[in-house]
Amino acid sequence: MKTGLKQKIIEQVAPDLEKVEAALEKNLEPNLELVRQIASHLLFSGGKRLRPLLMIHSARLCGYAKGFEIEFSTIFEYLHAATLLHDDVVDESDLRRGRKVAHRKWSAAKVVLTGDFLLARALDIAAKTQLPEIITVIAKITQDMSQGEIDQLSKKGRLDLRVEEYLDIIEKKTAVLIQGACKSGAILAGASQEQIQALDQYGFHTGMAFQMADDLLDYTASAQELGKNPGADMREGKLTLPLIHSLANASSKDQIWMKSVMADPDFNPDQFEKLKEKLFLYNGIEFTRKTAEDHVKKAKSCLEIFDDSYSRQLLGLIADYSIERKV
Amino acid sequence: MKTGLKQKIIEQVAPDLEKVEAALEKNLEPNLELVRQIASHLLFSGGKRLRPLLMIHSARLCGYAKGFEIEFSTIFEYLHAATLLHDDVVDESDLRRGRKVAHRKWSAAKVVLTGDFLLARALDIAAKTQLPEIITVIAKITQDMSQGEIDQLSKKGRLDLRVEEYLDIIEKKTAVLIQGACKSGAILAGASQEQIQALDQYGFHTGMAFQMADDLLDYTASAQELGKNPGADMREGKLTLPLIHSLANASSKDQIWMKSVMADPDFNPDQFEKLKEKLFLYNGIEFTRKTAEDHVKKAKSCLEIFDDSYSRQLLGLIADYSIERKV
Repeated sequence: MKTGLKQKIIEQVAPDLEKVEAALEKNLEPNLELVRQIASHLLFSGGKRLRPLLMIHSARLCGYAKGFEIEFSTIFEYLHAATLLHDDVVDESDLRRGRKVAHRKWSAAKVVLTGDFLLARALDIAAKTQLPEIITVIAKITQDMSQGEIDQLSKKGRLDLRVEEYLDIIEKKTAVLIQGACKSGAILAGASQEQIQALDQYGFHTGMAFQMADDLLDYTASAQELGKNPGADMREGKLTLPLIHSLANASSKDQIWMKSVMADPDFNPDQFEKLKEKLFLYNGIEFTRKTAEDHVKKAKSCLEIFDDSYSRQLLGLIADYSIERKV
Repeated sequence: MKTGLKQKIIEQVAPDLEKVEAALEKNLEPNLELVRQIASHLLFSGGKRLRPLLMIHSARLCGYAKGFEIEFSTIFEYLHAATLLHDDVVDESDLRRGRKVAHRKWSAAKVVLTGDFLLARALDIAAKTQLPEIITVIAKITQDMSQGEIDQLSKKGRLDLRVEEYLDIIEKKTAVLIQGACKSGAILAGASQEQIQALDQYGFHTGMAFQMADDLLDYTASAQELGKNPGADMREGKLTLPLIHSLANASSKDQIWMKSVMADPDFNPDQFEKLKEKLFLYNGIEFTRKTAEDHVKKAKSCLEIFDDSYSRQLLGLIADYSIERKV
């Protein structure tokens, strides 16, 4: 992997990032100490602010210069945080970003309600845009995301999950929010339908690549890099592309063996290592990487209708970064 | 209590109610079977559709005649249902409307996500109004409601809850949604600021009366009437007006005794009966009833700026009904 890409992006976005952080703090307002504590625990634990940055630069790429892009970009970080809070309750997962998840420290009840509050906060800021088109985008995002989560939950543990089902889940769970952030930036700028569509598709492909890379990391990264144990998806019964593709191409004997490991939530590290070998052997790792790279290419090609600019370059870098990041 | 008021209202609204039911079904669409099952369990278990009816008749009172009031009224039932679902998880309560609560039948995870889905559905329908003012109202509702719930949760078990804190909680938890339904109806109709304000205040007072009557019922109704055990609020550590007012007026000796019962979640039926006597003795019951009646009066006076009409009469009846209903 290329190194320095993350550093390069961070340097370029540093001034915006500082403003985004300030806006996230300000829009949280100390209404209720408890909300502040729980929300801050998640919001200020080193997130990358990818979604706000995408919204900001989509807006600027379309010539937006009215000065509210930072304020409105917080919508997408709050939506993201709200989903993570509810996810943590839903998944009963133990670690996120290497820190205790919120509801181990606070009750599930408080975490659910804080998630609701952040969603409401996002909506309140969205209402300030006074643009019904942006509200429509956000309504679609929230609907798709909750459907994606429900879908994933219903399909948990299904060893015969098809690629199309996987793609549908990651689109709803991850891509629609990134897509919506980009699209909203364009709408805010009063961009043409062609530009809105291009940024919508840029966001879709970047989001798909981002999630596939994330799903790869669960098999290829170390516990330290991940901030949580690798193999977590499998342990939770979530089948992702590396596994689905490998299963489809494995010998009958290996299929049976792989499914026996997958069906056992207490599989040991040795079994996990052996399973990883199969994912390389049957091309699941390579296929996932290639598919993610294709999405990055498509994302970048969506930017071609725009004149070269700082924001266009940055969006290009972020698309590259989506599959090259370490967590 | 006057009898027949409920019957009178039901007869008058029957044709609308039928359409509301159909719209609630239709807008739920069979996207995901699981959502449908969980949401239907709650949505179609005999709710009164109070909030949709208030929105519909607020719109008509302001001369709305474009024909979308039924469709848009479902927003407020979905918001209500979403809150109830999350509440049930938060409260870990056992019975609602005499039926098993959803998350005893389904996992808390699925119930949380279905709540999120209904909220998203409400937002999606709201976006179709293309009216940023309505989105602003809904953003305020969702924010206030989640804050009210968090506030109530944080203050659970506090035996020194003040009247103002109680009023603030019930305003956020109950009144803002009813208020928002009425206000949105007026906005949809393109009403004057004076009319919008009048219906906003009508909704506020009706909502406050409604919740106070509900809090009274927890002490005055039978288990059969309630569909759940009386004294549930107290058992959950929620202090409501009858108790707060009585405590403030009780003798020191009775205060100490009352607090000892309140602090014990396993109080027995005899103790509960004795406590109820104190609520009558120290006027908590009477004071709450009077305060609720005052709100009803104020609600009805807000309608005076409108010419007499079928919708105005109905809103008047609903205000009366808010404190006369049995569950």
